[in-house]
Amino acid sequence: MRIWIFSLIISQSLLAAKIELPWSALPKTPPIPKDNPQTPEKVYLGRQLYMDPRLSKDGTVSCNSCHNVMASGGDNRAFSAGVGGKLGGRSAPTVWNSAFHTVQFWDGRAASLEDQAKGPLTNPIEMAMDSHQAVVDRISKIPGYVSQFKRVFGDKGVTIDGVAKAIAAYERTLITPNSPFDRYVKGDKKAMSPQAVRGMNTVIEVGCVSCHTGKNFNAADDLAMGEGNYQKFPTFTDNEYVTKYKFLEDKGRGAHTKSEDDNYFFRVPTWRNIALTAPYFSNGSVKTLDEAVRVMAKVQLNKELSANQVADIVEFLKALTGERPKQQMPELPPDPPGMTTIDG
Amino acid sequence: MRIWIFSLIISQSLLAAKIELPWSALPKTPPIPKDNPQTPEKVYLGRQLYMDPRLSKDGTVSCNSCHNVMASGGDNRAFSAGVGGKLGGRSAPTVWNSAFHTVQFWDGRAASLEDQAKGPLTNPIEMAMDSHQAVVDRISKIPGYVSQFKRVFGDKGVTIDGVAKAIAAYERTLITPNSPFDRYVKGDKKAMSPQAVRGMNTVIEVGCVSCHTGKNFNAADDLAMGEGNYQKFPTFTDNEYVTKYKFLEDKGRGAHTKSEDDNYFFRVPTWRNIALTAPYFSNGSVKTLDEAVRVMAKVQLNKELSANQVADIVEFLKALTGERPKQQMPELPPDPPGMTTIDG
Repeated sequence: MRIWIFSLIISQSLLAAKIELPWSALPKTPPIPKDNPQTPEKVYLGRQLYMDPRLSKDGTVSCNSCHNVMASGGDNRAFSAGVGGKLGGRSAPTVWNSAFHTVQFWDGRAASLEDQAKGPLTNPIEMAMDSHQAVVDRISKIPGYVSQFKRVFGDKGVTIDGVAKAIAAYERTLITPNSPFDRYVKGDKKAMSPQAVRGMNTVIEVGCVSCHTGKNFNAADDLAMGEGNYQKFPTFTDNEYVTKYKFLEDKGRGAHTKSEDDNYFFRVPTWRNIALTAPYFSNGSVKTLDEAVRVMAKVQLNKELSANQVADIVEFLKALTGERPKQQMPELPPDPPGMTTIDG
Repeated sequence: MRIWIFSLIISQSLLAAKIELPWSALPKTPPIPKDNPQTPEKVYLGRQLYMDPRLSKDGTVSCNSCHNVMASGGDNRAFSAGVGGKLGGRSAPTVWNSAFHTVQFWDGRAASLEDQAKGPLTNPIEMAMDSHQAVVDRISKIPGYVSQFKRVFGDKGVTIDGVAKAIAAYERTLITPNSPFDRYVKGDKKAMSPQAVRGMNTVIEVGCVSCHTGKNFNAADDLAMGEGNYQKFPTFTDNEYVTKYKFLEDKGRGAHTKSEDDNYFFRVPTWRNIALTAPYFSNGSVKTLDEAVRVMAKVQLNKELSANQVADIVEFLKALTGERPKQQMPELPPDPPGMTTIDG
């Protein structure tokens, strides 16, 4: 009995310690919008669509080409390659845990995963479909998809909204819980190395947590879906990094809204799985995480970190790599027998 | 007892009927070379490598890009797209059941799946790695692969032979049994429609079976591994198809051996899953299976088929679509934390 009470006291103090940290463990499920409930059939359809290169003009690019769910959830390139090898202008963000983001894309121009999913389909340097109607027409030629859309969406059948909803529903399963940090914050104090703990304390002291807080390390916990946490990048421009890494070439949200007030504002990205997602920044110009840490300290906080501080922070960031879910490969429904639905 | 004997007589006669067909059911496992035994660890490593775009120069192309195991085992394009969107010169054959082929590639220039796997890695219009050593160097930078190669291949560690062996071992699991034809030939006479059975008889009568026999419909049952069944294509050149579909532009095996005797000779391709693998022929010039049937009859046998014959044959060919195995997505071992191993 005494031992039990003693344990209770300990866990209470651990709980107290937890509350002081500006982050929390990743929930196993993200917010689910009311108009797009999760069903196993919809998630499976979404996984098929996500993996299906027929959603691109010439049948060479799928969502997974640039957001690889067998790997980092991105493509580990500075710029992604679309149809015909064309290069995009920003680095593909990881799909892992994107379901917790309140806005999508580096400039936050999509208010939901559903909105986001529609973008690359018709982007001429990504999947390059002529129109959303062309996507619907392509999918409607594939008998297996037609019957699956009917099963999932009823009489609506194949629609671009259905495509987006199914892909978003699948993406809401792409959560990576149980990182060393998550286990640490839940009470397993041995889950992170002493160096990682030092790094954790350093990012608090240095001031990274003015933007990187909350369960997804992007200060979005209190935002409604569609509402973004945008921060200016670069903030301090009088340093070598800004030139070296060409940080003034992309106006970020301003390039989208055409408002000067939005110039150089970007959605704050997550830190989760950041050790998997080199190269770094929206232009992928920084190849390693240690350099990314140095850059952020200088460009955002005007601070120069010691080599030890950088090493400690990197160790903490490595502790944010979660467990990727086990998934079955989807079987893509075949084209009509003896035909191909793509040109190429 | 009498019923039992009667059943025995019936099954005996079914057996006799089976023996008369020039094909047989697909075994569940293909031949396994003595120097590359299957192990679960090796097959899993092979599946990872097969799916990993880091095996290409810029990290955009994996084996699966052109031989998609979630779909037809090919890419349903005339020519595959490699690094930078460069196009190859021949249509990607399906990987399904390729483990039964005695030689690989349209021109049979690889004597085994192991040999085949090494080709695309350094082909400048496919995966475009600078050399096999560059492949080994890339993989050797990835800690998870290094330990897996050690576990699978012992002290040899990461070698190009190991890469090829692991991929080949995985490909030997890519078998599609239980097609309607397989069930039919095993005794379930309702597994194929009457039209498919008519088509089956038609391909025998018409003479397609001078080349398309055996368990994989490519007359390779009696060949040793490394020994190819090559046939001339086109055989009859005095017809519109040869011009229309540019069949004289690719000298096939002759382009590889540089011997005139080999000009226009190709490895006889399988019929299995052919309804999944449009477009057709080594140059992917024929978009539909019914046209492919007309073309083959004219160009190889100098015969013109009736519309009914074509429809029946197509129905039979559709009955050769097997069951694709269920597979778990592999988890690709990450790059060293905070780094990317590719340039791009």
